Amino acid sequence: MHILITGAAGMIGRKLVARLVADGALSGRDIDKLTLVDVVAPQQPEKFSGQAEIVAADIADPAAVRAMVAGRPDVIFHLAGVVSGEAELDFEKGMRVNLDGSRLLFDAVRRLDYRPRLVFSSSIAVFGAPFPHAIGDDFHLTPLTSYGTQKAATELLLADYTRRGFLDGVGIRLPNIVVRPGKPNKAASGFFSSIIREPLAGQEAVLPVDDSVTNWHASPRAAVGFLIHAAGLDAAKLGPRINLTMPGVCCTVAEQIAALRRIAGDKVAARIRREPDPLIGRIVAGWPRRFDAARALALGFTVDASFDDIIRIHIEEELGGKLAS
Amino acid sequence: MHILITGAAGMIGRKLVARLVADGALSGRDIDKLTLVDVVAPQQPEKFSGQAEIVAADIADPAAVRAMVAGRPDVIFHLAGVVSGEAELDFEKGMRVNLDGSRLLFDAVRRLDYRPRLVFSSSIAVFGAPFPHAIGDDFHLTPLTSYGTQKAATELLLADYTRRGFLDGVGIRLPNIVVRPGKPNKAASGFFSSIIREPLAGQEAVLPVDDSVTNWHASPRAAVGFLIHAAGLDAAKLGPRINLTMPGVCCTVAEQIAALRRIAGDKVAARIRREPDPLIGRIVAGWPRRFDAARALALGFTVDASFDDIIRIHIEEELGGKLAS
Repeated sequence: MHILITGAAGMIGRKLVARLVADGALSGRDIDKLTLVDVVAPQQPEKFSGQAEIVAADIADPAAVRAMVAGRPDVIFHLAGVVSGEAELDFEKGMRVNLDGSRLLFDAVRRLDYRPRLVFSSSIAVFGAPFPHAIGDDFHLTPLTSYGTQKAATELLLADYTRRGFLDGVGIRLPNIVVRPGKPNKAASGFFSSIIREPLAGQEAVLPVDDSVTNWHASPRAAVGFLIHAAGLDAAKLGPRINLTMPGVCCTVAEQIAALRRIAGDKVAARIRREPDPLIGRIVAGWPRRFDAARALALGFTVDASFDDIIRIHIEEELGGKLAS
Repeated sequence: MHILITGAAGMIGRKLVARLVADGALSGRDIDKLTLVDVVAPQQPEKFSGQAEIVAADIADPAAVRAMVAGRPDVIFHLAGVVSGEAELDFEKGMRVNLDGSRLLFDAVRRLDYRPRLVFSSSIAVFGAPFPHAIGDDFHLTPLTSYGTQKAATELLLADYTRRGFLDGVGIRLPNIVVRPGKPNKAASGFFSSIIREPLAGQEAVLPVDDSVTNWHASPRAAVGFLIHAAGLDAAKLGPRINLTMPGVCCTVAEQIAALRRIAGDKVAARIRREPDPLIGRIVAGWPRRFDAARALALGFTVDASFDDIIRIHIEEELGGKLAS
């Protein structure tokens, strides 16, 4: 099996590559080739016995996109995109990369006429307030960011290209992914990770919102699991509504902090400093926070059991299983 | 006031122009200029005291689109597009005209940085089965045609361009418009009009579906009324969810025929010949048929009182008020 991953150098991309290499197979078929694409060259995967093609290319460059798919990959994971903060700051870049880039990819596949499974990483940013208590699978998409707009429009295209038989798409709306390793990116959601990550690393973290702020979380490991499960999903069971909200762990900031305290103690949890930022507060207030992801659950998608587990996965994957003293 | 109409040579476009010329004003302001654009040159409006600029241009031509808006029209009615049947037969043309053309228009306005009211004629084809009994204002858009996909994606762009202050958009999802005058176009919905129009003109009409088929109708006059009302809508009352399902008259084919019989008699109604077409039957089965258009009604949009009224409007506007013997 030949797998193409766009955005392979990103956080989820890297973890997906590691998982695929460790598994050696996808949906019961051996992986013999990986094509890894990102705007900066992704790393050569370690300990991979098959062929790995590393490509540094812009998803908004038509010739580069045609070249990416010329080898007719069996499965395409389309993760490339600019994040929400950047798409909001640079409108034209967000449109070009997140919307036009996706369409270029879908069109390049369409012209090859071979119908691969294409898993698209969408986002719960396709939803915009006001919301019902829990957002059901048939709630409309009224994004309140350009990023959410681009993801929602791409979902529509993915569904139509799938309906017409140009490709075999599955769109999965990822929850807020925590705990993100490394440094914060431009996302306004950064604090959801940093209030866990920094204290665990012995550093102070700033909490810019109220403790009652609620969000819909999943670990990077769960996100990779969603992608893998989506790649093997039976199109007949999925039906024509191919874009799915993923399950998540719904909790408040207070519950996040309580989980951190349970796992790492009072001293670590005390490293969170409250410094309200009204702008971030307003942005976050427009975000969805609780879903009834019934369809995804019925289709076999699974998520972390609790926020405690999300923290444990971070400690295991990023801190070598050890807590800083 | 300067008004730009794209798709001005189409059925709704022509009736909108006639209404604007008759009114002489829009939202309480005198109309001094009309820019009328279509892929074939629209007719010079009769009895218009202001300036009328007639433009034959392709909405998918960037230079032509920039020229259209260079005069900074105060209100833009964006009606241009290829119909559902054509967008389904010619995928690339549908995408180019209905999606890229709309985006070119929005971007041309964005670059002028002056925020006109832009009324976009969307369609209930943005919805796809299965449906609840009545489709509410927060039901998701899962179109089952490329036309519906292009309209839904354009709605998303319109909302984001409005949110960012690039323009002041209102999207209105038109019901099935009956009775369409003239000859059938490529739409699979053609029979909803022809079973009224042809019998009234002394001709036979073919009914390709079952009498129980239900749809959501509005007269051309009501559609023009929606556009005019949308042009004057208070953005503060509208809020961020700027795309609205219009009210309509929900009735079955049997109820359409009963209305025709009440108005024109048995002899006219007997001119409908039943000849089932399974393809049209399948297409129509995926269409929405009943809405709870609560938001539009609360915002003051009004529709025909009954299907009888829809037939009477056709007789008045297209047959000089007279029934054929």
